[in-house]
Amino acid sequence: MIKLIQTSEELLKHRKNQDKVGFVATMGNLHEGHVSLLEAGFKDFDHMYFSIFVNPTQFGPTEDFDKYPRTIEKDLALIEACLKKYPHKSVTVFNPKDVYEIYPKDFKLQISIQEMNKILEGEHRPTHFDGVTTVVYRLFALINPTKSYFGLKDFQQYIVIKKMVADMLLPVEIVGMPIIRETTGLALSSRNQYLNPVQKETALILSKTLNHLKELINGKKENLALAQDYIRTMIKDPNWDYLTIRETNTLTEKIENQSSLVILAVYRQEKTRLLDNMQLEVK
Amino acid sequence: MIKLIQTSEELLKHRKNQDKVGFVATMGNLHEGHVSLLEAGFKDFDHMYFSIFVNPTQFGPTEDFDKYPRTIEKDLALIEACLKKYPHKSVTVFNPKDVYEIYPKDFKLQISIQEMNKILEGEHRPTHFDGVTTVVYRLFALINPTKSYFGLKDFQQYIVIKKMVADMLLPVEIVGMPIIRETTGLALSSRNQYLNPVQKETALILSKTLNHLKELINGKKENLALAQDYIRTMIKDPNWDYLTIRETNTLTEKIENQSSLVILAVYRQEKTRLLDNMQLEVK
Repeated sequence: MIKLIQTSEELLKHRKNQDKVGFVATMGNLHEGHVSLLEAGFKDFDHMYFSIFVNPTQFGPTEDFDKYPRTIEKDLALIEACLKKYPHKSVTVFNPKDVYEIYPKDFKLQISIQEMNKILEGEHRPTHFDGVTTVVYRLFALINPTKSYFGLKDFQQYIVIKKMVADMLLPVEIVGMPIIRETTGLALSSRNQYLNPVQKETALILSKTLNHLKELINGKKENLALAQDYIRTMIKDPNWDYLTIRETNTLTEKIENQSSLVILAVYRQEKTRLLDNMQLEVK
Repeated sequence: MIKLIQTSEELLKHRKNQDKVGFVATMGNLHEGHVSLLEAGFKDFDHMYFSIFVNPTQFGPTEDFDKYPRTIEKDLALIEACLKKYPHKSVTVFNPKDVYEIYPKDFKLQISIQEMNKILEGEHRPTHFDGVTTVVYRLFALINPTKSYFGLKDFQQYIVIKKMVADMLLPVEIVGMPIIRETTGLALSSRNQYLNPVQKETALILSKTLNHLKELINGKKENLALAQDYIRTMIKDPNWDYLTIRETNTLTEKIENQSSLVILAVYRQEKTRLLDNMQLEVK
């Protein structure tokens, strides 16, 4: 069963009907990756909340807020199709009818995770993460979920939200779900639709490079220098916005004494920035 | 009964023993004004939480964080004395043993109320209100009070915290309590102790000016122009950091069509900035 709600008032009223719920926050334009988050939620909860809201505050002034694809009918159909596999589950889709349902007039709150919001993606999109943390907090406050599911494709987003939840002492568990890939290796993303066939082929450099680096490191700290050399060669191609090895939870570059690492990469195809990443352990 | 707690861990454990509680947040160095907040709480709750924490993040780099008076023994004695009048009430005093009890290592959260944090006091103290909102949120998250009591002397602080609670949908009611004054009219403040007798006499200009302005306006919109003229004359004295009439809830200068107003004033005596304010209604 699927219920569509378009106002915060109705959402708060409706929420009283369920005990513990899970939650997936999206900007719509759904693909298999989003559906995998919903299905992960069904393992834990009979009732899931699923928001579809293109959040203006996480777009920069030169970014594509107006052009961001709104495909609510297609999105609902995808959720309906998923629900057929789970006849005893139900979903409340929150699709605010306008921005005022999320940000009332005179809304002045900004929630930031300092420092982390300025590195990597934050360097390229200086206001992005403050927009993300503020909207996710606001959705959490409206929905009060026990667990919330995020795709690991946006790895920094996942880490920033986990940090927000920790620093705010929020009673919600953040669950990171694996990247869903095409058989070619390309990570699923709403942005892939902007790619022409040649660009889509070229974009495979992301997953190939990450795989190659992982093989090169092979779980051994002593191979990190080799990997850094390889990265230095690769990034001579100016289409890499970044290709970097970081500690998993802090995203710091100081990885000498760390064992949990993540390789974070952004490769550009004209204006389209494609993100990918790979976690690994070293000893 | 008074219980002193110095760690967040013990606080969270202890808090489970009470149902609904009220809360007063202070930086210590208590005076009658703080005690009036506690007594207001006793009207609503059998158990009050009272924090004493000199919060570094609300001090600017040139301000007196290190010199801020820490008088915990005197403070506890004042609370004990107050409790004698309320034999059936109890207070938990949270006096964190160090800053890490409030801000764990790697704490990165910042909660801001945009725009409001940059005007008036925020113009003179650009990082102040972000420090206030973040620490008050954090204390709310630890204590989970039903009501929290703030002195109206720090009027902008009261408004900013009310706005934070509204925008964050926090389940706590913010109660503003009247300014406590010496018989001379001087508003009680920890900062008064920095004044020599001559300065203390001079400082009466604050309450006198506010009273005069209120009389001048006399509840009538048509008299606001007169009051603005008077303000223009007064602020030729450079010791006024500001003396301004604002709308009560938004603190905007655009007051033409407003009926709830507040006159906000800061008068300087050397380095000591003395705050005062007065609310009024006009028709």
